[in-house]
Amino acid sequence: MPTAPIYLDHNGTTPVAPAVAEAMWPYLTEHFGNPSSTTPIGRLAREAVELAREQVATLIGAHPDEITFTSGGTESNNLAIRGAAAALEHRVAVTSAVEHPATVQPLTLLEAAGWAVRRLAVDRDGRVAADAVPSGPIGLGTLILAQNETGTIQPVAEIAERVHAAGGVMHTDGAQAVGKIGVSVNDLHVDLLSVAGHKLYAPKGVGALYIRRGTPVHALLVGAGQERGLRPGTENVASIVGLGTAARLALDLLDTEPERQRGLREELWRQLADGIPGLARVSPAEGCLPNTLMVALPDRLGADLLDATPTIAAATGSACHSGVHAPAATLLAMGVAPELALGALRLTLGRATTRQQIDTAATAIIQSWRSGG
Amino acid sequence: MPTAPIYLDHNGTTPVAPAVAEAMWPYLTEHFGNPSSTTPIGRLAREAVELAREQVATLIGAHPDEITFTSGGTESNNLAIRGAAAALEHRVAVTSAVEHPATVQPLTLLEAAGWAVRRLAVDRDGRVAADAVPSGPIGLGTLILAQNETGTIQPVAEIAERVHAAGGVMHTDGAQAVGKIGVSVNDLHVDLLSVAGHKLYAPKGVGALYIRRGTPVHALLVGAGQERGLRPGTENVASIVGLGTAARLALDLLDTEPERQRGLREELWRQLADGIPGLARVSPAEGCLPNTLMVALPDRLGADLLDATPTIAAATGSACHSGVHAPAATLLAMGVAPELALGALRLTLGRATTRQQIDTAATAIIQSWRSGG
Repeated sequence: MPTAPIYLDHNGTTPVAPAVAEAMWPYLTEHFGNPSSTTPIGRLAREAVELAREQVATLIGAHPDEITFTSGGTESNNLAIRGAAAALEHRVAVTSAVEHPATVQPLTLLEAAGWAVRRLAVDRDGRVAADAVPSGPIGLGTLILAQNETGTIQPVAEIAERVHAAGGVMHTDGAQAVGKIGVSVNDLHVDLLSVAGHKLYAPKGVGALYIRRGTPVHALLVGAGQERGLRPGTENVASIVGLGTAARLALDLLDTEPERQRGLREELWRQLADGIPGLARVSPAEGCLPNTLMVALPDRLGADLLDATPTIAAATGSACHSGVHAPAATLLAMGVAPELALGALRLTLGRATTRQQIDTAATAIIQSWRSGG
Repeated sequence: MPTAPIYLDHNGTTPVAPAVAEAMWPYLTEHFGNPSSTTPIGRLAREAVELAREQVATLIGAHPDEITFTSGGTESNNLAIRGAAAALEHRVAVTSAVEHPATVQPLTLLEAAGWAVRRLAVDRDGRVAADAVPSGPIGLGTLILAQNETGTIQPVAEIAERVHAAGGVMHTDGAQAVGKIGVSVNDLHVDLLSVAGHKLYAPKGVGALYIRRGTPVHALLVGAGQERGLRPGTENVASIVGLGTAARLALDLLDTEPERQRGLREELWRQLADGIPGLARVSPAEGCLPNTLMVALPDRLGADLLDATPTIAAATGSACHSGVHAPAATLLAMGVAPELALGALRLTLGRATTRQQIDTAATAIIQSWRSGG
């Protein structure tokens, strides 16, 4: 059996933490109750969901009643943006030019419904400027907390202050940030924050939306009254238990793991920059997720290099459709030249990443680059 | 430790089949890839999702490309009803008076948007009459395939023919039916069919929507392009694998298990009817899910009897809010007197139900009734 590649795609998805999978298992076997049922196993399921709600709330400094469980980051963003918009008066949204499709597409729907959407430009680090927020009334601000491709951390608190001063409600897509850096909804001054389980060592198919007390949000799905009517449908008990456990774990690790990963990432950058003349560092060295390194190869497609380097599993920043490569919109918005953007490699570390893996990965990438792969 | 109660609430939720949990486990541990990624573990996840799509399609006689995975029955019904409605011309919907809230509430939204919703009355068995479909153009028909409280199987094929003749698209909520009886989308003549994992020995938080080729449906959630744009968001891989395995298992068991459960259910009815004078059988003996028995106690609240009978875990048909019991709308629609409806007990069998459990359960219920519980 071939050795598994070194996994450097943690921004794509994280493994499920062993403790998370173990916490889920009883709820996939004997504790199968429906939380809406008054049977003993139903009550047990209800208690497990409420414990998970506390755990998620604790991670982000929220109250448990401010947490609504969803099917993941995409649904959380849809519920936040479209659900809040339905309750808002000023039909003006402020966002950035570097959002995830799960934010871009809901905003496009708002635009089609008559909203004005202001997309703030970003600098070469991929960051918006707080003073670029336009004057006049604002209904909704939505800004990605840490950008999924580059890891750039946005000045969410500063934008939130301006959005609030203009009468608006502030959302942040925290999918990539939560668990990788400390996140406090109060420090960020946000009213809505999206969480995605599978970026946080919990399984795919579960997420949460933080909704600050008093923030009006309309439900997107309708049915029976689960999640106080905001998100009907029988609760995804096992995965919610997993998300709660993942939140507790992430909190435990915040003191040590970000710094450890940041050190490994800088080592990876040093080795790659030494070995590949002209290698560009696309993601910023400061104000960036500690696990994220985006580089761009001179004169080489990132996709071709990854194809030639089975030693590692990583991502490019670009999309490939029918064999034609298109540079990532995020990089173009940062002013990266299209030909350089096509050379992008996104290398994202995780809890299991070791120094030895970093050395092996750097050597393999440099070797592929030298041999023309 | 006290013995676990005999579980007679399989219409509330089913346990996860052991083979289903085992099939899921690798996707909660080593096979954690993102199906959208081109990494080896990403491709493995993609293949697992596509195998599950085939398995679900096979169970209901569909093509794999007609299956869209969702977060469960509620989302499937919302996507079917609201997603189809957005693409339809005739703003008239035909439904029954005994639908699940996940159908009732989407229809209420359509009504608020100007649709006319015709709710067909049901007879004492809880069944609509096909010839009650109103004349004139119809946009959408939606009818529960098997009613969750009573188990009544509706004449979906006959209604579908009339809806099609009137120019409409036909949806059925198959959440309670799929896996309990043979279901063929072609025999039923439906264009849309909802599947709920947790009624089918798969976990909570996963479901599917069958969409017949050529049936236009608008997405409810927007984002990246997963599920051909119909249901964006990173796929719930482990639970989708579970749903596929559950579909395969259900197909294997359809030859034997429905008849076995029907036999046990009739035995339960015989013993209860012998022991409780005046006990009413609410669910029909024919044209009913084989696992479902709804009875109504004369002069006793179903909730009180269940409270007095910890030997079993079951449901009433009624809702209790702040200590006030309200009879189930489904039973009132069937013409059951409100005081009798408050005596309803829903006893629903499953794969693990044994003859000994039936004897014990019947004895316990009769004993509680006699002692005034």
